[in-house]
Amino acid sequence: MGLDPGLAILGFGIIDVGESDTGTMAGAAVVDFGIIETAAKTPVGDRLCTLYDDLHSLINQTQPQRVALEKLFFYRMGNTILVAQARGVIMLVLAQHQLPLVEYTPAQIKQALTGYGNADKAMVQEAVARELNLPTIPKPDDAADGLAVALTAWFQR
Amino acid sequence: MGLDPGLAILGFGIIDVGESDTGTMAGAAVVDFGIIETAAKTPVGDRLCTLYDDLHSLINQTQPQRVALEKLFFYRMGNTILVAQARGVIMLVLAQHQLPLVEYTPAQIKQALTGYGNADKAMVQEAVARELNLPTIPKPDDAADGLAVALTAWFQR
Repeated sequence: MGLDPGLAILGFGIIDVGESDTGTMAGAAVVDFGIIETAAKTPVGDRLCTLYDDLHSLINQTQPQRVALEKLFFYRMGNTILVAQARGVIMLVLAQHQLPLVEYTPAQIKQALTGYGNADKAMVQEAVARELNLPTIPKPDDAADGLAVALTAWFQR
Repeated sequence: MGLDPGLAILGFGIIDVGESDTGTMAGAAVVDFGIIETAAKTPVGDRLCTLYDDLHSLINQTQPQRVALEKLFFYRMGNTILVAQARGVIMLVLAQHQLPLVEYTPAQIKQALTGYGNADKAMVQEAVARELNLPTIPKPDDAADGLAVALTAWFQR
């Protein structure tokens, strides 16, 4: 499972990878992707409760074995604190499920998917669709980002 | 209950205030103060679990009616993200207990306790001891900060 953390929208992508002892990449198949949304006008504490409950449900339903998370970068002051607060709740839930966690920077994800650390969003999304044999680019963007993080973790193994 | 949020150390201070209809300040009495600590060498997720469990226990034991929290300011890049992650878990726990939350900036706390928004730490701590009729300054510093936040919330009402 790959996660693109946020408070308003948490993107997730779950892939099933054919584990191969020969080292060949047997191909990854999409299991599920989507988003967990919290309402902007709700108090932050209530939004964190929604995130906590919905992520627990998602993990219980899909039983992922490993989780990869996009590393947090500083962009805007207020926003970074909100995202980091949401990220704290996400890391709590993963730890409560004793799920192993790896983290990747945006540049690592771009590099892994396109071979180019400065690739734009569209290039990464096209690579996601191609790798997973999807006829169209997964929507919304945050879900595609979740799949990109999951694929990065797979490529890195 | 006043909280000084952190990942390594969460300071808390609990005061009982004599509610008075005449508007006079009947005086505040210390109920409890202290810290919740998490081990630096432990993975962040596990530390957030400790914080989550211990804060739930503290609230169940002490049954606070209102909670005040120190607002997060940017100081150092990595540190701010760690503190914000811990803060997300703290806000989650408070929301799970449906506890009303108020937040104050460090300047508001200094102003409330000493009448001076740029007061140094020692001045604030002396004010905490004086207001609560304590013979010595509460230790550790994070616990004294928790009491300062609680007193600020009381003065502001």
